Amino acid sequence: MKEFDVCFSPELISSYALEGKIAVVIDVLRATSCMTSALSNGIKEIYPVSTTDECLAFQGLGYLTAAERNGETVDGFDFGNSPYSYIDNDVRGKTLGMTTTNGTRAINMSNHAKQVLIGSFLNLDVMIQYLKEANEDVVFVCAGWKGRVNLEDTLYAAYVIDALKDEFNVTSDGCIVALALKKQCDEYESRFEFLKDCNHVKRLSKQQGIMRDIELCLSDNQLNTIPVLNGDKLVSLS
Amino acid sequence: MKEFDVCFSPELISSYALEGKIAVVIDVLRATSCMTSALSNGIKEIYPVSTTDECLAFQGLGYLTAAERNGETVDGFDFGNSPYSYIDNDVRGKTLGMTTTNGTRAINMSNHAKQVLIGSFLNLDVMIQYLKEANEDVVFVCAGWKGRVNLEDTLYAAYVIDALKDEFNVTSDGCIVALALKKQCDEYESRFEFLKDCNHVKRLSKQQGIMRDIELCLSDNQLNTIPVLNGDKLVSLS
Repeated sequence: MKEFDVCFSPELISSYALEGKIAVVIDVLRATSCMTSALSNGIKEIYPVSTTDECLAFQGLGYLTAAERNGETVDGFDFGNSPYSYIDNDVRGKTLGMTTTNGTRAINMSNHAKQVLIGSFLNLDVMIQYLKEANEDVVFVCAGWKGRVNLEDTLYAAYVIDALKDEFNVTSDGCIVALALKKQCDEYESRFEFLKDCNHVKRLSKQQGIMRDIELCLSDNQLNTIPVLNGDKLVSLS
Repeated sequence: MKEFDVCFSPELISSYALEGKIAVVIDVLRATSCMTSALSNGIKEIYPVSTTDECLAFQGLGYLTAAERNGETVDGFDFGNSPYSYIDNDVRGKTLGMTTTNGTRAINMSNHAKQVLIGSFLNLDVMIQYLKEANEDVVFVCAGWKGRVNLEDTLYAAYVIDALKDEFNVTSDGCIVALALKKQCDEYESRFEFLKDCNHVKRLSKQQGIMRDIELCLSDNQLNTIPVLNGDKLVSLS
C-alpha cells in the first residue's frame, strides 16, 4: 500500500524524502489557487520563481507577471495574488511569471520529487481522483507562512487524505495531525467559519475586497485543472 | 495577554522569534523525560550536547554520560535514553553529559530564548503552574523526529495550552493544530492507547523492555522538577 505523509513547512522538505514520490504543493491562500485559476482560464504556462527580480525579468519577454509579498501586490507587476485576476482579465494564450511569499518557493524546493502537482480546494476532486489512479507515495508540501505551520494548507491535505484513507497508508504522524484538524473543522458550520480567524486570514483581512478572494479559495471543485511542474514551468496536467 | 505558539520541529526555530520568550523544549520519548528524571533523582547538572564526540569528552572529567542515536544506546556510554537509568542507579550528586537524536539539538538551537525549560508529561502540572505565574510569551519547541512533526511532543504542548487557554492567547495556527490533536486523543481510552501506533513508538517497539519506558514517559505528574537551561547546562529550576 502506498503511503501519504504531510510536510508542514517548506523548511522541512529535506526531512521528507521526495525522491520517487509525488509532491502536492499547497498554498491555498492564495498562490496555488491562483495557479489553478490562471491555467484554467487560459494561461498557457506559469514560471514560478522565488524572487521579484527573476519575475521582473519576464516582462522583457512579453509575459504577464504576478508578484505578492506579505499578502500585498508588489508595485510594477500586472497582478498580485488574486485568483480573480485570471477571471476578470483576458489572459488566454499568455505566459505568466509568478512569485509569492511562500508558494513559489515551496514549488521550487520540491522539484526533486518524481512529480510536482499543485493543490487547492478549487481542484479538490480532480486531485483526489488523479492521486487514486496514480497510486504512488505522496508527500503533501504545505507552503505555510514564512516557515510556520498554517491551518488552511494542512486542512487541504487532510481533505485529500481523508478521501483516500482506504486506498493509502495514512498512519504517519503527519497524516494523523492533519486528520485531527479536519475533524475539528467538521464541527464548524463551514470551512470558512473555521478558518476566518486563522493567522493568515487575519493578516489578509486589512485588504479591501479580500473576502471575495478568500471565499473563492476555500470553495471546492470550481475548476478541473491540476497544474503540474514540467521542467521549470507549470502547465495543465493532461 | 501573553501568547502561546507551537514550533513543530527544531528546523523551524528560526521562523519563531524566541527572543524575549520562554522556550519549552519537548522530547517526550524520551530525552526530556530522561532529563526530568535525572535531575529529580539526584543528578546535579546536565550538559546537553549535540554530538557523541562532545559527550564522550565528558568521560575524562569523571561525568556520567548518556548517548542515544536512532532510539538505541550508543556503545561506550553509561546510559542510553531511558528515564529508569536514573531511578535504577544511584546518580546522586553526579554531573551528566547527554546527547540524543533530537532533544539535545532542540535545546541548543533554542538557547537564544529568554529562558529554556524542559517539558515532559512527568512534570506537566508544575510546568503549567510555572508558566501561569511567569506570564510570558511561550513557544513550545517540539523536538520531533529528524525534522518531522511527531504526535507525542505536539500532544504535550496541547495539554499545557489547553490548561492555560483562559490565561493566554492561544489563537495561533500552531496552538489550534495542537489542540485539535488533543481533542482527537481525548476520544481514546488513554493517551497510551492513542499513541501506541504513532511513528516513534513503532520505531522503538523492537527494543526489549521499551514499553516500560514509554508508559513512564506518558505518565502525568510523577515528578516536581523543571529542568532549566543555565548557560550551557541544565539544572533544576528553583
